[in-house]
Parts: sequence; C-alpha cells; structure tokens
Amino acid sequence: MVKLLDGKKLSQKMNVQMKQDVAALATQGIIPGLAVILVGDDAASHIYVRNKKRRAEKLGIRSVIEELPVTTTETELLQLIDQYNRDPEIDGILVQLPLPAQIDPWHVLLAIDPHKDVDGFSPVNMGKLWSGRPDVIACTPLGIMKLLAANGIDVAGMDALVIGRSTIVGRPMAGLLVNADATVTIAHTKTNDVKAIARRSDLIVAACGVAHFITADDVKPGAVVVDVGMDRLPDGKLTGDVDFEHVKDVASAITPVPGGVGPMTITMLMNQTIQLAKGRAQRE
Amino acid sequence: MVKLLDGKKLSQKMNVQMKQDVAALATQGIIPGLAVILVGDDAASHIYVRNKKRRAEKLGIRSVIEELPVTTTETELLQLIDQYNRDPEIDGILVQLPLPAQIDPWHVLLAIDPHKDVDGFSPVNMGKLWSGRPDVIACTPLGIMKLLAANGIDVAGMDALVIGRSTIVGRPMAGLLVNADATVTIAHTKTNDVKAIARRSDLIVAACGVAHFITADDVKPGAVVVDVGMDRLPDGKLTGDVDFEHVKDVASAITPVPGGVGPMTITMLMNQTIQLAKGRAQRE
Repeated sequence: MVKLLDGKKLSQKMNVQMKQDVAALATQGIIPGLAVILVGDDAASHIYVRNKKRRAEKLGIRSVIEELPVTTTETELLQLIDQYNRDPEIDGILVQLPLPAQIDPWHVLLAIDPHKDVDGFSPVNMGKLWSGRPDVIACTPLGIMKLLAANGIDVAGMDALVIGRSTIVGRPMAGLLVNADATVTIAHTKTNDVKAIARRSDLIVAACGVAHFITADDVKPGAVVVDVGMDRLPDGKLTGDVDFEHVKDVASAITPVPGGVGPMTITMLMNQTIQLAKGRAQRE
Repeated sequence: MVKLLDGKKLSQKMNVQMKQDVAALATQGIIPGLAVILVGDDAASHIYVRNKKRRAEKLGIRSVIEELPVTTTETELLQLIDQYNRDPEIDGILVQLPLPAQIDPWHVLLAIDPHKDVDGFSPVNMGKLWSGRPDVIACTPLGIMKLLAANGIDVAGMDALVIGRSTIVGRPMAGLLVNADATVTIAHTKTNDVKAIARRSDLIVAACGVAHFITADDVKPGAVVVDVGMDRLPDGKLTGDVDFEHVKDVASAITPVPGGVGPMTITMLMNQTIQLAKGRAQRE
C-alpha cells in the first residue's frame, strides 16, 4: 500500500504549533511581520499573494502587501526593499516572481537583507545551505524535507534524483539532500537519459514542469516520489510532473498534486517568518 | 591513446598571460596584493604557504605572509582579517586551513570580505556559484574546469560523478559542472555503491582522499578521470585517489598526480588575485 505524503494534513498540524509560537511572541510584544512585494499584474502572482496574505492573517502574522505598477523601475523597487530591510517590525521580505523585464531579479536577490530573505533565494542563503550550514532555506525544498521526515522517510544513503536545476527548487533541494546524506543526482534539460536515472533511484523529486513526465515505467518499485509540478493538462485540469494514478501503484510513498508539496511551501514561508520573528525577540 | 591532462604545462602557459596582466596593471600603478594568514605550526601548511609566496613573487604579485602563533584567539584572527578587508592594496585574503581548535573556520569564512575571498570558500561565493552566477570560485574546482576546457573536453550532457562533498572541492565542483550542463551525481562516505555509479559515468572527479580508490574496473572505457587526491602509499610515496597506472589504459583522458590538478589550484589562486586587482584598477 502506497503512503500518501499529505502536505495539507501536515500543514494543518503545523498550524497548531505556529499559532502557539505567535501567541508566545505576542506576550513579548512581538508580531511577526512579512512584507510581500508584487510588481505588475500577473494574474497567478496576485492569487499567490492573496493566499499568502490570508494564511498570514489566520496565523496572526502581520502581512504588508505592496502592489507596484508594472512600470516600476529597478531603482524604485530596490529603494522599497531597503526601506523594509531597515524596518524593525518586518521579519521577512518576499518579492513575488516573475518580475517585469526592466528589473533584474538577481539585483533584487542581492538587495534583500539575507536575514530577512524569508524565501531563501538570496546567494548568501544558497551558499550557507551548500556549505552545510543552512540558515533561511528555500520554502519548497524545505517543505519537502519536512514532509519526508514527518512520514518517517530517512533519505540518508538513498540514491536521490532531482529533476530540475532552478535556484528556487532543484539546486537548494539537491543541497539539502546532500546535507542529509543522500547520494544526489541533479538532472535537467541537457541530461542524456533522465528516465534511466529515475528507474534506479530510491527517491525522485520531479521539478521539471512537464505534465506527467514521470510515468510508472520510470519508477523503481518501492521508490519515494515527490512531485513539485503544477502543470496543466490539455483539458485545463491541474496536475503534476508525475502520473500519479499509475505511479502510486509502484512507489512506496508519493505526494499528490494538489495537496502535497504545494501546501508545504506556504507553510514553510509562514514558519520561517515566525522563526525570524523569534530571532528578533531574542535580540530585543 | 589516453590524453594526459597536464596541469603543469597549462600552468606554465597561463604564467605568460598572468605576467602580461601584472605588467599591464603596473602601468596603472597597481600591484596585485595577496594576504596569506597562517595560524600555528602545521608543517604541511608552512610548505603550502611558502609555495604560494614563491609563485606570487615570480609573477610580480605582492604577497604578505602573516604567521600567527598557535595560541592566537579567534578575535585576534578576525581583527587581522578586518584589517586586510580594509586595506586598499590587498586584493585577496587567504586563511590557510586547518586552523587550531579554538578558532571556528566558519566564523573566519564569514569574516573575509567576499570580494577579497580569493579562495572562494565564503558562503556568498558558494551561493553565487550555486545560483549560476559564479564570482570568485574555489581554486581547485575552477582549475579542473580550466584543465578540461584547455584540453577540448566539453562536459555538457556528460554524466559526471563527483566523489567527495567538501566545501573546498566536491560541492563547488558539482555546482560548476551543473552550470556547465553536466548531469552531476554527488557521492560521499554515505553513498551506497559509488563504484557502480563510477562505472557508468562519463566523467569522474575523485576527491575522497583514499589512495587508489578508483581502479581500472571502476572506469567506463573512454571516460575522463580527474584526480584531486594527494595521498600517501604505505611506502610513503605520494599518489592520488586514482590508480593511474591501470586507469590510464581505460580512460580517454586523465590527470596525473603530481602534475595534474595540484599545479592548477595554485595557478587559479594567482589568476584570481590578478583578476581581483583588475577589478580594483577599474574602480580607481
């Protein structure tokens, strides 16, 4: 029987602890503060930001949503980031991607104070992770590690395959798995035969953005399969990079889409904001 | 016929360019400056530092060697680093490892100005590399990339195996290979069957510190084999992680030990010092 790696359930469980943490901070006069900056009018981004705002509200986190016009210059955005860098009541700063073409996302990542970089995308936090000293961690890979651990899956010694090398998922995911003693292969669009690698892997993290890329034939019996994809099928239905219906009969554990990795990402964002607020409480 | 990846020869070739670069900088009144800090009396470290000093002298790089007693406190060392961080005539700062037990090497890496971190070991530089935006790069992996490129070896699409996950070699090596479009597997002491992975790899970078760990049986015919090891055989003879005498009959290209990766490391150190001095020349 396959084990369902249920991110929704784990998120609900973590909500209890997070609410307790927020209540404890309140007794010290501290409210965790999250600044979310959104540039332009990407429809999906607006939905993501709204979801983050709602989730923050439910947990008692103060969120400040900055919606900037699509014509915003890089200088204007960097000035706003700097304002939040210096704001003592803001613990986490998140700039929603994608950004309009006139803004270089690399300059944005360099501008965010690494101690407030709640998304964990800045080079300092990528470097700490890859140096085996993680600090703030990219939320999706972190959520995956939590989901595996909560389900009693120890990756140490596993042959793990990460499909995708984005700075947001693939690269930090690989670093976390190396730190956790997995043997990690990083595959991408230039990989010769990713399916052959998948077939011999104990753990597959699919983050390639291709609907149903991983089929039952690509999975070793008993492997653990994590699906980061949020893809659309021709009929418009939301699905993942993994053909869940068939892979679930081969894998020992699998994340559903939706309800697997997705909920964990936003949960980690909230949890890291709270952790950063705890750091502020200790300094004050 | 196996191709010998000759790091000594390439280093000599690069010396010509480096001397020209130093001469060009001299016309602008700039001498590249390298500060090397050595704490304690580790015999091997003293030899390494002396070699760096000699090499710098030959190239016209100014080197400042700071030899501190084994009793030096972390605070004292961090103060000295800060002094060189602020010294406008020092382009690169290198703290020789290992350090005495009372000094945390992580604090040292965090203290060196990332723009002067000529060894490329600081988390910022690790993070830039793993974000696909390398700046100052760890010298041994960088030297390996140069050695491969100079011998017409393109790693794109190769299945590459990096044995070892140190922050000095394995981790940055893996990042550079991912950036160069190789499919990279990172293996280490917790890996289940590293030899099986080796046998199917197009490129093996051995950095595990075990004499003759990779034998001819572990290498796919025609694979490229890079040996980072500096190990001692029972008879005291210096050798590498690869059984060169037998692997050379299977591989298409291989680095000797000594004369392969070793000379490239110090060459990259000198070259990055010069590049950092060029950056200073542009700013002035």
